[in-house]
Amino acid sequence: MRILPRTVRWEKGKVILIDQTKLPEELTFVECEDVECVARAIEEMKVRGAPAIGATAAFGLALVAYYSKAEDENEFFSEVEKAARRLRRTRPTAVNLFWAINRVMRAAKAGKSLQDMRKRVLEEALKIAEEDVESNRMIGEYGQELIEDGQTIMTICNAGSLATVHLGTVLAPIYLAWEKGKKIKVIALETRPVLQGARLTAFELHYAGIPVTLIVDGASGYVMREIGVDLVLVGADRILRDGTIFNKIGTYNLAIISKEHGVPFYSVAPTSTFDLKSKREDVVIEQRNPGEVIEIKGVRIAPSGVRVLNPAFDMTPPEYLAGILTEKGILRPPLMESISNLFGL
Amino acid sequence: MRILPRTVRWEKGKVILIDQTKLPEELTFVECEDVECVARAIEEMKVRGAPAIGATAAFGLALVAYYSKAEDENEFFSEVEKAARRLRRTRPTAVNLFWAINRVMRAAKAGKSLQDMRKRVLEEALKIAEEDVESNRMIGEYGQELIEDGQTIMTICNAGSLATVHLGTVLAPIYLAWEKGKKIKVIALETRPVLQGARLTAFELHYAGIPVTLIVDGASGYVMREIGVDLVLVGADRILRDGTIFNKIGTYNLAIISKEHGVPFYSVAPTSTFDLKSKREDVVIEQRNPGEVIEIKGVRIAPSGVRVLNPAFDMTPPEYLAGILTEKGILRPPLMESISNLFGL
Repeated sequence: MRILPRTVRWEKGKVILIDQTKLPEELTFVECEDVECVARAIEEMKVRGAPAIGATAAFGLALVAYYSKAEDENEFFSEVEKAARRLRRTRPTAVNLFWAINRVMRAAKAGKSLQDMRKRVLEEALKIAEEDVESNRMIGEYGQELIEDGQTIMTICNAGSLATVHLGTVLAPIYLAWEKGKKIKVIALETRPVLQGARLTAFELHYAGIPVTLIVDGASGYVMREIGVDLVLVGADRILRDGTIFNKIGTYNLAIISKEHGVPFYSVAPTSTFDLKSKREDVVIEQRNPGEVIEIKGVRIAPSGVRVLNPAFDMTPPEYLAGILTEKGILRPPLMESISNLFGL
Repeated sequence: MRILPRTVRWEKGKVILIDQTKLPEELTFVECEDVECVARAIEEMKVRGAPAIGATAAFGLALVAYYSKAEDENEFFSEVEKAARRLRRTRPTAVNLFWAINRVMRAAKAGKSLQDMRKRVLEEALKIAEEDVESNRMIGEYGQELIEDGQTIMTICNAGSLATVHLGTVLAPIYLAWEKGKKIKVIALETRPVLQGARLTAFELHYAGIPVTLIVDGASGYVMREIGVDLVLVGADRILRDGTIFNKIGTYNLAIISKEHGVPFYSVAPTSTFDLKSKREDVVIEQRNPGEVIEIKGVRIAPSGVRVLNPAFDMTPPEYLAGILTEKGILRPPLMESISNLFGL
């Protein structure tokens, strides 16, 4: 299987990123040797997907440590802090970005000498990336057990290798099932408005040689009814304590369509996605720029002045879920209970 | 209410069409004085929508009659026949096109003199257009009774004025309700792949000053759940004897989503849409060019070589329908019985 290279990797003082703005036309890379280059890559969405952004920012701080000419711990720490400020401004709503930066800052603080600080920063960044890959591999191992030879799996958006450091969350079980010789097929919903399904999921599966068929979002019911789908896997941006999931707009529709056709519908996400404190009404669904709907790659498709509603996410209640697939295993209904058990609540 | 002018009209030896390829950017017109101009307008989709195409082709034949220099009935009839052949080649799968052309040809044949033939051709074309407008007005009158002041109505694709000679089928009840002072709101699904909801429905409602909000197809469940929808109206390309409807891809999903939220879901179409002979398995769903999915207005959005499934239509079983709205009134479940009664079967 020709799986994509890592979305972000460290190589002797360089951060190497797949340039996702060039996909699906060409697979090219951005190489950064300073934090400004990394910050711009995040801002310009050359890298996207919460886990991928987090690791990229951590590597941005690693670049500072690698090239630092600071002469003492204080000078070094202010260099890293300045870089962290720059990185935090890139995507101010990305939770993973702050989490990764904070982990690296804590590692820097714990250093016992200038050399130790520099070493710890780099090590922490590498660790963040490795943990992501390992978590996805575990998700893949548990998840591939859900998949039988010859099955057809439907997915929305991109929770693939390109959204993480490697392998992805939703796509990890698909890659691992394929690697184990299961002849599966994937149906990718294009996922308007930003078309991550068409641009990224179709791209990375096609690249890996896994049979993938692209459809418009409105064709999911047709495909379930006329062709047949065995399993639906979707990501999650946030999972509440009762198993309610928030994910890309269109996920809730897909959950309803799956239920109507008796197709098992799973959310796939690492345990870091759980928000055990918030209630449904606490979660504000981000309303994005109407331009995403009325223009596609700069081409206008709707009349000017028309009102647009462009929610980025929607909410799927737990009763639609056959389970939640994490790196710790598969949580089964009743989800409230399974989640409580997992987190020892 | 600033309603759109007629999609196609006759004016002293001219066929005047709204140029839909220029929408939603600008409202411009094509004027034809010969049948070749009309044929090209149909081929190039300057005019689309089954009833609009039928009336346009009929007016194409009227142009022949208007300008004919034929000296006897035979010569005239071959002129009209030649023009009919040209028009039939424009959209070879459009049922309405053949129906309208045949009506005009029969009218020509019934003529008792050269003058009478020319007169009958023009009259028949005008009649086809008037009947369409009248049928839509009746649909609008029956349909607006379903709509209460302050309600929100969701629709997919364009079954509006632009798909017919005037008023539309799905949009006729909306125009008439608005005219009667009901303060309604419309949610238009953009309707991938060809985006008729964004390009046409949003345009014509916005033009009429009726509040319209454009959303991606995947947001229908979100809107029903979070904002609330009172009524869903969709068109139909074909309706079977048991009330099964075939309509634009995405309609079946919308039917399921409506049922899940308890929102009444109606199909709106003239009685000429009923196909009382075919069974579900007889109806072949047209699979269209993958280019419609992987390119938007010439801009590529998916990797080359990826497999695409692009069904133009889907099937919605009768159990999802609260009723079928026609120019003869509203058919209610059990639909098989209501349809049998209407057609005296």
